[in-house]
Amino acid sequence: TLELPNKESNQTPANVRHRKHRRGGRSSQGHGSGRCSGRESLDKALASFLNWQQSAEERAEAPSPSVYLSKRGNSIRQHQGTLQEGFVQYAANKYHVTDNPEGIINLGTSENKLCYDLLHARLTRPDMLYVEPSLLQYSDWTGRTFLREEVAKFLTHYCGSPKTLNADNVVVMNGCGSLFSCVAAVICDPKDAILIPTPFYGVITDDVDLYSDVKLFHVHLDCEVTIKDYRAFHLTVEKLEEGLTKAKQEVAVILMNPHNPLAEIYTPEEMIAFLEFAKRNDLHAIVDELYMLTVFDESVTFHSVLSLDSLPDPLRTHVMWGLSKDFAMSGIRAGTLYTENRELVEALAQLGCFHGIPGTVQHQVAQLLQDRAWIDNEFLPENRRRLKAAHSFLTGELRSMGIPFLDRPAALFVWADLREYLQESSFQEELNLWRCFLRHNVLLSCGQAFSCSTPGWFRIVFADQHLHLGGLSQHLYLLFILCKLYLFSV
Amino acid sequence: TLELPNKESNQTPANVRHRKHRRGGRSSQGHGSGRCSGRESLDKALASFLNWQQSAEERAEAPSPSVYLSKRGNSIRQHQGTLQEGFVQYAANKYHVTDNPEGIINLGTSENKLCYDLLHARLTRPDMLYVEPSLLQYSDWTGRTFLREEVAKFLTHYCGSPKTLNADNVVVMNGCGSLFSCVAAVICDPKDAILIPTPFYGVITDDVDLYSDVKLFHVHLDCEVTIKDYRAFHLTVEKLEEGLTKAKQEVAVILMNPHNPLAEIYTPEEMIAFLEFAKRNDLHAIVDELYMLTVFDESVTFHSVLSLDSLPDPLRTHVMWGLSKDFAMSGIRAGTLYTENRELVEALAQLGCFHGIPGTVQHQVAQLLQDRAWIDNEFLPENRRRLKAAHSFLTGELRSMGIPFLDRPAALFVWADLREYLQESSFQEELNLWRCFLRHNVLLSCGQAFSCSTPGWFRIVFADQHLHLGGLSQHLYLLFILCKLYLFSV
Repeated sequence: TLELPNKESNQTPANVRHRKHRRGGRSSQGHGSGRCSGRESLDKALASFLNWQQSAEERAEAPSPSVYLSKRGNSIRQHQGTLQEGFVQYAANKYHVTDNPEGIINLGTSENKLCYDLLHARLTRPDMLYVEPSLLQYSDWTGRTFLREEVAKFLTHYCGSPKTLNADNVVVMNGCGSLFSCVAAVICDPKDAILIPTPFYGVITDDVDLYSDVKLFHVHLDCEVTIKDYRAFHLTVEKLEEGLTKAKQEVAVILMNPHNPLAEIYTPEEMIAFLEFAKRNDLHAIVDELYMLTVFDESVTFHSVLSLDSLPDPLRTHVMWGLSKDFAMSGIRAGTLYTENRELVEALAQLGCFHGIPGTVQHQVAQLLQDRAWIDNEFLPENRRRLKAAHSFLTGELRSMGIPFLDRPAALFVWADLREYLQESSFQEELNLWRCFLRHNVLLSCGQAFSCSTPGWFRIVFADQHLHLGGLSQHLYLLFILCKLYLFSV
Repeated sequence: TLELPNKESNQTPANVRHRKHRRGGRSSQGHGSGRCSGRESLDKALASFLNWQQSAEERAEAPSPSVYLSKRGNSIRQHQGTLQEGFVQYAANKYHVTDNPEGIINLGTSENKLCYDLLHARLTRPDMLYVEPSLLQYSDWTGRTFLREEVAKFLTHYCGSPKTLNADNVVVMNGCGSLFSCVAAVICDPKDAILIPTPFYGVITDDVDLYSDVKLFHVHLDCEVTIKDYRAFHLTVEKLEEGLTKAKQEVAVILMNPHNPLAEIYTPEEMIAFLEFAKRNDLHAIVDELYMLTVFDESVTFHSVLSLDSLPDPLRTHVMWGLSKDFAMSGIRAGTLYTENRELVEALAQLGCFHGIPGTVQHQVAQLLQDRAWIDNEFLPENRRRLKAAHSFLTGELRSMGIPFLDRPAALFVWADLREYLQESSFQEELNLWRCFLRHNVLLSCGQAFSCSTPGWFRIVFADQHLHLGGLSQHLYLLFILCKLYLFSV
């Protein structure tokens, strides 16, 4: 359910927005500066905000076409969304508590930065420094046998599969982005489309398009709660069916559980219904379970589709998982696909040469996945404890600021409703607010990067050690003030 | 020059082939079995050979189309050349001196297996087991700054660059296959073509086609020595110009130095001429220098194009190098591109997310490249010494068997002329001979896998420890006998 922090904000944001009109050009001096209440940090923020407004029109333009690149090459080069734009700025100016305290705090990229100490201790054990001849040589492009066997055992156990999963059904590549690209290439022809409910993790758009020229067809979920539909962004079979009737040439549907960015956990009954929908319509179902172990409320159980006694359409169901989120190592580049469709595996093997993982890292990943003592007794419990604490901290702050959000016990982020702080309900306004945050060294992800149908929603990542240590409180408060400043700069 | 082991073989192979006629169906019992001279191993080989002939028609068919894959996906899945077919069989049945002495010896895949002891000692030093937070996180998709800086320093030194090379011009990806794929995607549009002299390392065909739908246009080099052209497979600007007039929509040319499979080393004057040709015709020049440190004759000096005072067309010249060959670690997946064209770098950065290398491995590679003491005093001299010994051994065996070959002081293989052992000059016959070798547990690469215009040439890799230890002598002799058996089974 959509969390509404207090009764006042129960009025719909549309009402709030009615009172505003669009900020015009540079006539922006008359904002509510009296609200700053004398704090030095707020003065700084205000000065910075004014400075930002003056340069608001001086935005970076898309680069002009290069004579050295093909039409496709220019299109690839010029492609840049806000997720990437934000990350590039962050990478060049990272916040560090002592070395760069004025740097950018990244609450936009979904990474778990809470458990580095645990990972460091495990990844520097002697078993990780292992070399043998075959690890330095060419091998199977779907992943080495010893790794695929460990992945199969791991998924059998942690997905609660009723049968032992088969290593021959496992494909390992350097990240799930690579798997999305490959799967799109072999189940779709160019210009084909894949159905996906919105909002969704926006990078998938590029994953299936850049190389494979496959498009996503959006099924928009509504943020408004109605009598008919009591859950915000509620995914139902009816909405999928409706989307499909509008679409052409769809060959697959992407389902995420736990969901990114909603952090929604779907029940086995819901997932079965979605998979039955896919089967009825001869659609491949690509099931992204990247956050399956990132559920930090003990009272909630995640159910993998691999735990089902039988899949509705096993040869068209392909389950993705990886180490980036659940083991907090996006920099290690390891994603896995489980599918009973051997023809798909054979096709993926052909593209695997572009997505290979070093043999030595395949050994390390296999060592990690088989170390159940470390996973069950050290990493998972402590990781969950820290995630829960960080989630509580962020959601507490949001509540105190009166910002509505979806309260879910999974993933590394919350989906927050900042519609109240837009001067009008438009994606340009959302982008302006996103840039305002970034200008003030806070990187978030805005809803349009996730193809959200309503402007004003933001994904805020809480799994950052700075936040864990409590150092982010002031930043969040500033963020809130900035929202207010932005809102009243009419 | 083409090495002709004795005067008798100085007669052109065409003359030899005149005496033969095509082997018909199963009427193949009348071969020269009297030549076996009673050795047990030869008896075994003969029995095996007869057995092989009987099953010669039972070849694996291409798989039938899958209803679960797209047209493109089926095409990708069904794509399989002899390089791949051979490697799959080898991977399932690898020779091992004690564990699997009847397994396949791989003289087909270009890997350096001579220096594992040196690599193991270096790769298990404590500096290789290093983890820090940023290595586990997302980063720059062209390679981390510390790695690109080390690559730039390394190339500056080992390519003998007159100026310090710039880390911003370096792109690092998981292998040169990935770099070929990406570069093709951004400088070509679908169906565009790239000019390439043949024979050439055949995997490049897939590298530029599978994802990027770019074709290669072949410029055939002739194996015959004439008065006009005294070098076998001689690459000249005239041949490139002639090729270009026949081609359409060419946007680039691929140049390899040292060459694969010819092991030819081109002089700076030749390379400048090729680069001037590219410039005159507005072609990108992709210069593959993967074997630049694999030159084992001290009297021969390799010159990288990066050693030139100035490149004819620096914004269209892109130089590839990697660790697979020169550092004998194809399983580590690290390829580098050096280009002054920042627009190209920007485009590649967009595709880099599909070709990322683990952060920890980027650290290891950087450590290795900066360890000049190890490279200069330990690895390179000993590697060259072993390569030279292995090359001498193989070429000695070939000479004693009267098999002509190109005698070159570089790379990991020799390009050998087995035309004499084909029953007729056809690629089907070449394939039959290749399958005959494989059936007898010796994997080679045949010329058609490298688009050689004349049937009967084979690439034989000598950089194998079994060969280094002298254990391959018997296999090579058997191979020779098999050739003879095959030839006389008319």
